[in-house]
Amino acid sequence: MNRAPDTLRFKPLGIDTAYDHVVFMHARCHVCRAEGFAAQTRIVVHARDKSLIATLNIINDGLLDTNDISLSLGAQHTLGLEEGDPVTVSHVPFLHSASLVRGKIFGQRLGRADMQAIIDDAVTGRLSELHLASFVTACAGEHLDTDEIVALTEAMVTAGERLTWPHPVVVDKHCVGGLPGNRTTPIVVAIGTACGLVMPKTSSRAITSPAGTADTMEVLAPVNLDLAGMRRVVEQTGGCLVWGGAMSLSPADDVLIRVERPLDLDSDGQLVASILSKKIAAGSNRVLIDLPVGPTAKMRSIEAANRVSGRLVAVGRALGIEVTPMVTDGLQPIGRGIGPALEARDVVQVLTNEKNAPADLRERALLLAARLLELGGKAAPGQGAQLAAATLDSGRAWTQFQRICAAQGGLREIPVAPLVHIVRATRAGRVSGIDNRVLARIAKLAGAPTSPVAGLDLHVHLDTWVERDQPLFSIHADAPGELRYARSYQAEHTDVIVIEEES
Amino acid sequence: MNRAPDTLRFKPLGIDTAYDHVVFMHARCHVCRAEGFAAQTRIVVHARDKSLIATLNIINDGLLDTNDISLSLGAQHTLGLEEGDPVTVSHVPFLHSASLVRGKIFGQRLGRADMQAIIDDAVTGRLSELHLASFVTACAGEHLDTDEIVALTEAMVTAGERLTWPHPVVVDKHCVGGLPGNRTTPIVVAIGTACGLVMPKTSSRAITSPAGTADTMEVLAPVNLDLAGMRRVVEQTGGCLVWGGAMSLSPADDVLIRVERPLDLDSDGQLVASILSKKIAAGSNRVLIDLPVGPTAKMRSIEAANRVSGRLVAVGRALGIEVTPMVTDGLQPIGRGIGPALEARDVVQVLTNEKNAPADLRERALLLAARLLELGGKAAPGQGAQLAAATLDSGRAWTQFQRICAAQGGLREIPVAPLVHIVRATRAGRVSGIDNRVLARIAKLAGAPTSPVAGLDLHVHLDTWVERDQPLFSIHADAPGELRYARSYQAEHTDVIVIEEES
Repeated sequence: MNRAPDTLRFKPLGIDTAYDHVVFMHARCHVCRAEGFAAQTRIVVHARDKSLIATLNIINDGLLDTNDISLSLGAQHTLGLEEGDPVTVSHVPFLHSASLVRGKIFGQRLGRADMQAIIDDAVTGRLSELHLASFVTACAGEHLDTDEIVALTEAMVTAGERLTWPHPVVVDKHCVGGLPGNRTTPIVVAIGTACGLVMPKTSSRAITSPAGTADTMEVLAPVNLDLAGMRRVVEQTGGCLVWGGAMSLSPADDVLIRVERPLDLDSDGQLVASILSKKIAAGSNRVLIDLPVGPTAKMRSIEAANRVSGRLVAVGRALGIEVTPMVTDGLQPIGRGIGPALEARDVVQVLTNEKNAPADLRERALLLAARLLELGGKAAPGQGAQLAAATLDSGRAWTQFQRICAAQGGLREIPVAPLVHIVRATRAGRVSGIDNRVLARIAKLAGAPTSPVAGLDLHVHLDTWVERDQPLFSIHADAPGELRYARSYQAEHTDVIVIEEES
Repeated sequence: MNRAPDTLRFKPLGIDTAYDHVVFMHARCHVCRAEGFAAQTRIVVHARDKSLIATLNIINDGLLDTNDISLSLGAQHTLGLEEGDPVTVSHVPFLHSASLVRGKIFGQRLGRADMQAIIDDAVTGRLSELHLASFVTACAGEHLDTDEIVALTEAMVTAGERLTWPHPVVVDKHCVGGLPGNRTTPIVVAIGTACGLVMPKTSSRAITSPAGTADTMEVLAPVNLDLAGMRRVVEQTGGCLVWGGAMSLSPADDVLIRVERPLDLDSDGQLVASILSKKIAAGSNRVLIDLPVGPTAKMRSIEAANRVSGRLVAVGRALGIEVTPMVTDGLQPIGRGIGPALEARDVVQVLTNEKNAPADLRERALLLAARLLELGGKAAPGQGAQLAAATLDSGRAWTQFQRICAAQGGLREIPVAPLVHIVRATRAGRVSGIDNRVLARIAKLAGAPTSPVAGLDLHVHLDTWVERDQPLFSIHADAPGELRYARSYQAEHTDVIVIEEES
C-alpha cells in the first residue's frame, strides 16, 4: 500500500458508530484534496504500525483543524490511538476478493482459495458491508453447491480459533431456529452432561429472532466467557452454556450475520456453513441438529428440511464430523415465553419439575436429550428416552444446570418486565392457527432481545378452546415507546392467532 | 408512523456524509434509551412536517447535550433545519419492499407493483444501502428477464418527474461510456437541432470519469437550468445541453448508481433501465445509443454489446420508444483533451472547423449525427452522412451551438490551466497501446473535474510513430499539489502509453 507522505494529528471526537469504522477529516485538509478523497470514500488509515479501512466523513466547521484527523470510537480503540498521535492515510488497494464476489454474482464457482480470500477480507474489514451484502445475496437462493459450502465452512473455521479437547467424543446440539420459544438447549445440556457427556456448548445471540440461546442463558448466568474461562467450566462440569462470540470461533460467521440480519437473509448454504463452522471450531465431532418444520418456522416443508439435512451430513462428512439431523414438529411455538427472560423462566420451570412447566418444552427437550445420549454412547439405542426422563425427574439435571451456572459466574434471578399488555380473544372458538413470524416480530418490536425482559407470553396453543375476552398472549416491554410500537403492529395483525367459531 | 412524544433540539455539527443520512444523539439521551436505539440503528427523523430515515451514531462527549440531536449535512438540508428546531424520532416501520427484495434473491419474479414498491422505497431512502446492494446483486447476472427490466424501467420513470413535449418526434443520443474524451454529444446536438430535430438533452456529471458531458458543457455555458429554464431553451432553439441532476428525472437511477459504483457492478438489466428511464422521463421517443467496444471501455466485447443492444431495443419497444443501438470502436480515447476545459476546446475546434481539430472526434460525431438525422426523419436512409457533414462544414452547427449556449445564459471563454507538465517518450518507436483507465486516473489526480481546467492533453494516438523526447501527453492542473500528485502517479505508470521499438 502506498502511504501519503503527509501526516495528520489524531483528535478524539467520541463518536460511536459500532462496527462501522468512520474517519473524519476537514473539508480543506490538504491530504483529502491531494488524494481526491470525498465523503463516503473508503480509505486506509495507518497508525502505530497498524491499519484499518474506514469510511470518510467530511467535517465543515470547527470540530477539526485542517491538520487534524479523527476516528470513530471502535476504530480509535482498534488502532490504540491517543490525542496527538500521528496518522497517515492512503487509498484502498485493489481487492482481489471484491472481484471474486463479482464473479460469483455472474455465476462463477468459488474454490477453496477464493472462499478463503473472501472470508479473510470479511474478517479484517477490508471488504465493505456493501460487498458483504452482495456476497451473501449472491450465495443465497441455492447458488452454492456442496463443494462451495465445504470451502466456505473450512474458510470460516480457518479464519478463527479452533479448540481441541482431550476427549474422544465431544457432542453438540443445535437448532436451526425459526421456532419462537424453542429453548431446549439448556435442558439438553443439563441432562447430557449430568449423564457424563462432554458438551462445550457455545451459542449465538439472536440474528433475526427475539432471542438466541446466548441471550436467554445470559438471563440466568454470565455467558461472556473467554476461552480459558470456558475450558475451566467444561473441566469442572463436563459442559458449558456460553456465548460463542467472545471465543473468536468462526468470527466470519458474526461478520456475515451482521449483514444477513438487516437483510433477513439466511440461505441453505450460509446456514450449513454457519452451523458447522462453529461446531468444528469448537472441537465437536458428533452433532445433533434439530430442524423444526412448519409453515411459519425457518424450515417451511419436510422437503426443505430434508434438503438442508442432506447438505449438513455431506458437508460434515467432508470435514470429518458426524452430523445427525432430526426433523421435528414446528407447527407452533414451544413453551410459553418468547424473549430472553420469558424463555429462561420456561427453562427453569422444566428443570425444576414445576407442576405448571410447559409440557411441550419438556417433551421436546427429552426427545433431543435421548437421541444425544445414544449418539454420545451413554445409552444403548432405544434406551436414551428412559435415561433422559430419569435424569430430569430425579432433579439431577437441575443440580447439574446449577453447577454449570455457578462455574460460569453464578445463577441469576430472572427479571420481570415493568409493562405488560394483554391481548384478548375477540370471540369464542377454537385456536386453529398461530403465526410464528408475526409473534416473533411483535416480540422484537417490544424490545427483545435488547431488553431481556421484553417479549411475549403465549397463553394458548393450537386447538385450545377460548372464550371471548380470554387472554391469548401478553406483550412484555421495558419502554413505553417499544410497547406502543408492538401494540400498533399487533393491532394491524389480528389474525396472528386464528380463532374458528364452532360450526 | 408513530412519533415519539419526546422532542429533541437540533444542533448543527457540519458533518458531511454525502448521500448517507446520519443522525447523532448523545449516549445518555432519554429518547435513545426509551426507544432502545443503539449505534447503527436505522431510525425515522421527523421535523418541519417532513421525515427521513437515518443511521444512528452515538456521541459520547461534549459535542451534544442529552437533549440535542444532530444530523449530517445532507439530512439537515433535506429537512431544512436550523439550530434549535424541534425534532422527533421513531422506529422504522416494517418494509414490504424488503420482503420483495428477499423474494427476488430466492428466485421470485418481480411484477410491476413489486418493482414500484422497491424503487419508491429506494428513492425515499426507506431501503438501506445494504438492501440496495442486495437488490442490485439479486438482479445482476442475468436474473432479470425482459418483463422485469420493463417493470424496473417503468418504476424508475414513475418515481420522478416526466417531461412531455408538443412535438411528435423527440430524439436523444446516449453513450454507455467508459471511453475518455468521447465528447460527441455537444456536436451531435448542434448538428441535429440545426437540421430541425427536437433534442432536449440532459447529461450527467462525472461519476467515476474525469468529466461528464455536463461538466464539459459547463465550461461553455451555464447547465444548472431548472425545468422551466430548460423548456424555454428548447422552445427557442429546438435543443439544449443541460445537467439532468436538477430535473429530478429518474432519481432512482442516481440512488442505484451509488451502490453499483463501489460494488463495480453494472448488470445488463440495470444498465438498460438506467439509460431508458432517463430518456423516457425526458420525453424522448427515438433514441440512439452509442456502445463503444474495447478492452478498457465499459463494453469489453462485441458479444456483450450485442446482448445489451437486444435488451435495449426490446425494453424500448415495450415502453413505446424506438431505440437504435450503434456499436462503435472503443479501443482508444477520442479527441485529445481529457477533462472539462480540454474536452470543451476539442468540441469547439470541431464545431468551428479549425484546421487542427481532432479528426477522430469530428468523424465519430458525424457518424452519430448522420444516424440520428435519419432516425428523426430529417434525412432519407443513407443521406444522413451528407446532411450532417454539410451542416458542420457550412458553420450552421456552430451558429446553432452558439444559439443554444446564449439561450442557456451565454457562451463562455474556455479557461486555460496555469500549470502544464509535458510527459515525453523515453525512446523512439510506434505507439502500440494506450491504457484508458490509467489516463483517466491521471486526469482525475490532476484535479478533473473539480478544477475544470485540469486534465490531460493527448498528443499521440495508436500507431503514431514517435521520436525519443517527443511529447506523449501534457498534464494540466490548477494547483501545484495536484500536479505533483498526478505526476507521481504517472511516474509509477510509465506503461500508460506503450511504445514498441522497430524490430
